[in-house]
Amino acid sequence: MHSLRQYFPILEWGRTYNKSALSNDLIAAVIVTIMLIPQSLAYALLAGLPPEAGIYASIAPIILYAVFGTSRALAVGPVAVVSLLTASAVGQVAEQGTIGYAVAALTLAFLSGSFLVLMGVFRLGFLANFLSHPVIAGFITASGVLIATSQIKHILGINAGGHTLPEMLYSILTHVGDINWITVSIGVTGTVFLFWVRKNLKPTLLRVGTPTLLADILTKAGPVAAVVTTTLVVWIFDLADRGVKIVGEVPQSLPPLTWPGLSPDLLSALLIPAILISIIGFVESVSVAQTLAAKKRQRIDPDKELIGLGAANLGAAFTGGYPVTGGFARSVVNFDAGAETPAAGAFTAIGLAIAAVALTPLVHFLPNATLAATIIVAVLSLVDLSILKKTWNYSHADFVAVAATILLTLTFGVEIGVAAGVLTSIVLHLYKTSRPHVAEVGLVPGTQHFRNIDRHDVETDPTLVSLRVDESLYFVNARFLEDLIQKRVTEGCAIKHVVLMFSAVNVVDYSALESLEAINHRLKDMGVGLHLSEVKGPVMDRLQRSHFVEELNGRIYLSQYEAWSSLMNSPQSNAAR
Amino acid sequence: MHSLRQYFPILEWGRTYNKSALSNDLIAAVIVTIMLIPQSLAYALLAGLPPEAGIYASIAPIILYAVFGTSRALAVGPVAVVSLLTASAVGQVAEQGTIGYAVAALTLAFLSGSFLVLMGVFRLGFLANFLSHPVIAGFITASGVLIATSQIKHILGINAGGHTLPEMLYSILTHVGDINWITVSIGVTGTVFLFWVRKNLKPTLLRVGTPTLLADILTKAGPVAAVVTTTLVVWIFDLADRGVKIVGEVPQSLPPLTWPGLSPDLLSALLIPAILISIIGFVESVSVAQTLAAKKRQRIDPDKELIGLGAANLGAAFTGGYPVTGGFARSVVNFDAGAETPAAGAFTAIGLAIAAVALTPLVHFLPNATLAATIIVAVLSLVDLSILKKTWNYSHADFVAVAATILLTLTFGVEIGVAAGVLTSIVLHLYKTSRPHVAEVGLVPGTQHFRNIDRHDVETDPTLVSLRVDESLYFVNARFLEDLIQKRVTEGCAIKHVVLMFSAVNVVDYSALESLEAINHRLKDMGVGLHLSEVKGPVMDRLQRSHFVEELNGRIYLSQYEAWSSLMNSPQSNAAR
Repeated sequence: MHSLRQYFPILEWGRTYNKSALSNDLIAAVIVTIMLIPQSLAYALLAGLPPEAGIYASIAPIILYAVFGTSRALAVGPVAVVSLLTASAVGQVAEQGTIGYAVAALTLAFLSGSFLVLMGVFRLGFLANFLSHPVIAGFITASGVLIATSQIKHILGINAGGHTLPEMLYSILTHVGDINWITVSIGVTGTVFLFWVRKNLKPTLLRVGTPTLLADILTKAGPVAAVVTTTLVVWIFDLADRGVKIVGEVPQSLPPLTWPGLSPDLLSALLIPAILISIIGFVESVSVAQTLAAKKRQRIDPDKELIGLGAANLGAAFTGGYPVTGGFARSVVNFDAGAETPAAGAFTAIGLAIAAVALTPLVHFLPNATLAATIIVAVLSLVDLSILKKTWNYSHADFVAVAATILLTLTFGVEIGVAAGVLTSIVLHLYKTSRPHVAEVGLVPGTQHFRNIDRHDVETDPTLVSLRVDESLYFVNARFLEDLIQKRVTEGCAIKHVVLMFSAVNVVDYSALESLEAINHRLKDMGVGLHLSEVKGPVMDRLQRSHFVEELNGRIYLSQYEAWSSLMNSPQSNAAR
Repeated sequence: MHSLRQYFPILEWGRTYNKSALSNDLIAAVIVTIMLIPQSLAYALLAGLPPEAGIYASIAPIILYAVFGTSRALAVGPVAVVSLLTASAVGQVAEQGTIGYAVAALTLAFLSGSFLVLMGVFRLGFLANFLSHPVIAGFITASGVLIATSQIKHILGINAGGHTLPEMLYSILTHVGDINWITVSIGVTGTVFLFWVRKNLKPTLLRVGTPTLLADILTKAGPVAAVVTTTLVVWIFDLADRGVKIVGEVPQSLPPLTWPGLSPDLLSALLIPAILISIIGFVESVSVAQTLAAKKRQRIDPDKELIGLGAANLGAAFTGGYPVTGGFARSVVNFDAGAETPAAGAFTAIGLAIAAVALTPLVHFLPNATLAATIIVAVLSLVDLSILKKTWNYSHADFVAVAATILLTLTFGVEIGVAAGVLTSIVLHLYKTSRPHVAEVGLVPGTQHFRNIDRHDVETDPTLVSLRVDESLYFVNARFLEDLIQKRVTEGCAIKHVVLMFSAVNVVDYSALESLEAINHRLKDMGVGLHLSEVKGPVMDRLQRSHFVEELNGRIYLSQYEAWSSLMNSPQSNAAR
């Protein structure tokens, strides 16, 4: 039973489920459902899919996540960045609006789900760590800009294309003659209204005495109001006949059973994008889940989250959806609305299923421009250029990683942007550690402490050089230490002993071991002893497995002070003084 | 004058040059010249070039290195591994034996020289550090096997091809019917003789009372003896007419002035191989130079070495040569023979120039099988499979890097082998640091020291968790710390304070800063304080540039003991006990 519970977290919270939790979960589900209906339609539009795909992608995935996931508040479904990645990936293998396009989206969800489950089973969640925070921040910001730009065509009522910023802007400019001004009025009004709701509605309502919860719900319902109003306007004034593009026919049905395409060509073309979507989705989802869990002193298990998200994506693949992940906005709404268990998600799924069966005819006259407005307003909160300033202040290397990711994502698209960002941060990290801080230390008089001779007034001796190495030693900096010691020792003719203080050396890899051996042999040739001090247990264990310790032309001291005392009294050293 | 000397190390040693140094240098030059003549011909054969290219590649490069290089004993010229890399790179753009092939080799030397000079000018020598010792060792071993295998065709007298082990073996098998048995006799006898000379001649000579120096010279002259004998045999018995392949016509001339091909297609095709050759050549050369310099308490400057080697390669490009580097064998011979300054190299160049003008007709009947035998005997000393055992004992990650490099170099060729090796060692390093050692520590009774609670009998307190982080914090392990702390804190309900002991944290990058901020916020939400202790100067400087310190829900203590004393007496902590 215990092991079953390990794989089905639902058995954990299901046992203690009670009436109070039920009513809290139901309320949360109503609020989230209202918010998700327009959002799902909008993200489907962003992904280039028919509107119902967005709703289908919110039903089965939510239920599957409720069974396998470990976060109690995470709401899974289509999100902006993953929709953009889907559009970019699927757009490379099929024409938008064709059956092939929808099938490719299913395949993408299938691959992404399989990859996530595999990562979870093999506990490979750490792979997500190769995406540094600056790279993610830069990527999300650039994606926000790309997404908002991609919606301009809907606001203007033109047919533009492109997946990178220059392509999109160029395409918009070449189609500028086709602008439909009625669409523009709807789109711009919708955008301004939604911005106003987002920024000012809640404070205004609170000022006039509205209860907080109601003010919250009314604010969340802003997009619904925009959808209803513009749909009515288009219907009443027959604006569809005057060139305003509308959502049109949406099938009235529960999610259908669908099959992803499994041709080798399709699979291999979508594999890399699927991996990218999986990792980005996982990173976004886990950080949301962790933040919410901490608020209730709960814990999520990243490896089980992989399985939960993987199951959700596999669910999307077989029920007419497309890749999904845990969304930030919807999860926070779910949490704030009081959701206590994943059952809230299941109730949301039921709400959306009812909407799919009953409400879809109502969105027939909904203009695309309104959906575009909701997307633009939603994603502009993703754009956060302050990361540039923050990283610049903190560390220029991180700044370079952010700037490179933003620039390359905007100009060359999402895949190259992320790949370049990952590469940049790895190379910069290796570069930083390639020239470690090495301090020459001396004895602080009257103590047993050793400090940097350049910063403190310390005792030194011309026959003894003590170097504190402030970095793990591995291949990237191994040779640096060779050069540094060679340089230092050829400078001072009286030097008889070199002591390397290893208090901050956490690892010595085989390259560094060979460098230490080379240093030892070279110092021996010069008649200089090599000693180590304050070597950590794990490092020492490893050194003892090599011949280094027995060949060492010197000793390994427990503390730097012991090394100093012993070597200052050695006959060799005294003779040289 | 000082700054001039900085760029022309020759001005440094030139000033103090005297008669004793001159006579030592002259003796070394004679020994090295005798050794280099057959070696140069053999490596040219290995590179797929006409024999004179090997001699030309030893003349101008030696002189240019004497002017710009900083090592006093390094002997620059064609070496086995670089010749193999040349054959592999040039073989991809031109047919062996054509003018295009020779021109491509010049271009390769030109690109490699330019790249080395650029690296030197921009002080990018650290890039070579991305090649870890295990990768280099694996690569050299695999190259030794590839080179020896590539010479089997000359020993058998057949026309086989291929650049990878399976290709070569397959090609040899399909041509096995064409074996020329006279060639085989010469080749096998030569190989056995040279092995015997290498292993047994010197001890035998010493046993019969030969002076050491003479024994040394006779041993070094082994290849010359093989060359002279087999040439005479082929000439006297007209074996060339019976299918034994010979060196043939070699122009009698000083190195000609040549021009590398500079077409964009050729340059772009050879750029990556040129970079690879530069870095591998540089690594080999610098480790030889450093080892020899240390024996005389001298120092080499890696950035100037880049310029010295770059100049040598540019020299090779314009004088009918091909890529060169500082060779291990010839440098050691030079050093052992008593070379005191780079002038020894210049004298060697003069000796080879005389050979090029006067002695080339003598090698007309030299059989290729003899050259192949000298190559096989020389490179088998490169093959060192003990590295597999050594790394296995020391660290499995390093073992994987060696094994991957050897396997991939043998099966897919030198370029893929090295690239995969570099990638493997970087990923393994990142993986190792992605799950750092974090020890929960407690107070050793009666002291101010804190030790791992799992290994020592220490005082702890249920309200206080002290974690010593044994690794720099950066993006790859940032999230690991988040998970770990979240897990630890949700386990113990009484926990009021978490102290992170930063004594071994050398860097906190922006990702880790954000993770620390997230940890701080989450702990705050749980009502738990977060404190740091023993933060290093450079790390503290950086943290102070962010908002982390002011937002910290706790304090930063100078020592772990201070943190412990202060938090154990805090009212919050006492209340919880």
